[in-house]
Amino acid sequence: MANIQEVAKKAGVSVATVSRVLNKQAIVSDKTKEKVEQAIKELNYEPSLLGRNLRTSESRLILVLIPSISNPFYAEIINGIEDTAISQNYNILLCDTDSNPERESIYFNLVKNRMADGVISMDPTVNKERLFELAETYPIVQCSEYDEHGYIPYVTINNEEAAYHAVKHLIDVGHKRIALINSDEKFLYARERRQGFERALAESNLPIEDKWIYHTEEVDFEDGQKAMAHLLELEEKPTAVFAVSDVLAIGALKEIHSKGLKVPDDLAIVGFDKISFSNMTYPTLTTVSQPMYTMGCTAVNMLIDRLQGKEVNSVMLEHELIIRESTT
Amino acid sequence: MANIQEVAKKAGVSVATVSRVLNKQAIVSDKTKEKVEQAIKELNYEPSLLGRNLRTSESRLILVLIPSISNPFYAEIINGIEDTAISQNYNILLCDTDSNPERESIYFNLVKNRMADGVISMDPTVNKERLFELAETYPIVQCSEYDEHGYIPYVTINNEEAAYHAVKHLIDVGHKRIALINSDEKFLYARERRQGFERALAESNLPIEDKWIYHTEEVDFEDGQKAMAHLLELEEKPTAVFAVSDVLAIGALKEIHSKGLKVPDDLAIVGFDKISFSNMTYPTLTTVSQPMYTMGCTAVNMLIDRLQGKEVNSVMLEHELIIRESTT
Repeated sequence: MANIQEVAKKAGVSVATVSRVLNKQAIVSDKTKEKVEQAIKELNYEPSLLGRNLRTSESRLILVLIPSISNPFYAEIINGIEDTAISQNYNILLCDTDSNPERESIYFNLVKNRMADGVISMDPTVNKERLFELAETYPIVQCSEYDEHGYIPYVTINNEEAAYHAVKHLIDVGHKRIALINSDEKFLYARERRQGFERALAESNLPIEDKWIYHTEEVDFEDGQKAMAHLLELEEKPTAVFAVSDVLAIGALKEIHSKGLKVPDDLAIVGFDKISFSNMTYPTLTTVSQPMYTMGCTAVNMLIDRLQGKEVNSVMLEHELIIRESTT
Repeated sequence: MANIQEVAKKAGVSVATVSRVLNKQAIVSDKTKEKVEQAIKELNYEPSLLGRNLRTSESRLILVLIPSISNPFYAEIINGIEDTAISQNYNILLCDTDSNPERESIYFNLVKNRMADGVISMDPTVNKERLFELAETYPIVQCSEYDEHGYIPYVTINNEEAAYHAVKHLIDVGHKRIALINSDEKFLYARERRQGFERALAESNLPIEDKWIYHTEEVDFEDGQKAMAHLLELEEKPTAVFAVSDVLAIGALKEIHSKGLKVPDDLAIVGFDKISFSNMTYPTLTTVSQPMYTMGCTAVNMLIDRLQGKEVNSVMLEHELIIRESTT
């Protein structure tokens, strides 16, 4: 039977375009659609979808580990993962580990029992040793969070540089007393973002003050509120805050309002991620945009390459500083 | 081998408590934990987890259909589903249909191919005929959205009454010109919430004006902004708005701000769902709280009852009006 590559070749289009036609995505022009449908007909191609796993030992399921479904940062990545996976006839088993090792172990067993073909891990709380052990036998890709000393391929952004840009922006608009709301530095991204924060300060000969660095326990709104409450109680208060997640920044914003202070006049604030809600706050939030959708697509393509036995290199995607009302 | 019920009985606690101990949830006191662990030891109980599906034809997987992972309303329900499912040794296959019938059909095939034991559908865009057809052979529970004429058991709230309460509150604080931002009335919840809106107005002899009823295409922030922009262009403007989703209300709030108007002085606004963001907006949003976590737990318990061949009745849970700054 013909495969999707042959259909693409015959129609003179990319495999992605064939996928789009199969998935009835509106983006394809009628003319292209016709060409693809003609090729499908001539080659007698049948998209196998789930049927495939009945004939082979493939499950056609990709396990996606996320630490919490409540953080909207992951939703956009998952949209990219889903679109790409489904266009390549894979389904997604979305696993919210809730940072709970018991759950993680249940999900890892799904792979060991061959109920899933591979894993995309976005969970910074994942047990590294277990993940490495699993990676010796099964294809795994890390997305967003990764392990610098591991050998698991990953797709991420340059967190150090992104944080540097965020803090440099605060310095450029005149701030000298800049606080950092960081998450737990057991996570690589938290350590990297702190390094970027410190580099920007050092470069401008600004002091790096421990009292202006706060570590949250989790990444919920409440953690951002608590962090900001702490910073606002200091004798020498910061005039600007860089929070390593929009969720934390939004919680901080709420706390600033509740103290009757104004953003950005009394305090400027920068977040990280560009979740959709970051443009709904009042004032809107300056933030570092991660290409979340692309990150998800890239992770799936890397995993599928691994499943097909290909060599895979890690990928560093571009970030972008989005300047909005909370700093200017 | 002992089962979880026997462990609970021996320890003198509920099955839920045993589950919590097995899942290492912090909520259990040390003393209770000790009792449970003692009972587990004495009875030589082994939580079977995934192992079970290797011995039987059960997949121990529950398929959960959501229309979009980007709406935080679903995240909290999913937390309830996951906690309950995992405590009963089921895993969740979370399926974002993106309101795409192709995807839906892929996921339904998973059930037909016995890769999942049953379905919890939260997708209001689900193809009803296909769902009913599937329900003839496989256990299905509808969660939040349901079909009034179908025979699929559901867990939901009384949408008509909840909307009535929300609008009654706006009338009670003095509003007479009240607009409705509704989603597409092809959805039952949208029709029911409109009925509640109309009942409250009629009861106070207030006119139901078509010009103050806006239907959005999707349920995104942008749809709320668009709806509000339209209402603010009317010659006779409303003084209050009831939006059938917090996401829409938050978009509307943003639009009101961008026009330089104040909430609640120029316009009061009520949302629906009580997503966590609704308390992070400025001002905070008055909203109708749905017991989302409980809804998720209930749906799983109903589905597991169905899987065990038990009779299951539909459940109507309580709602609560949460009065915050956007109306008072």
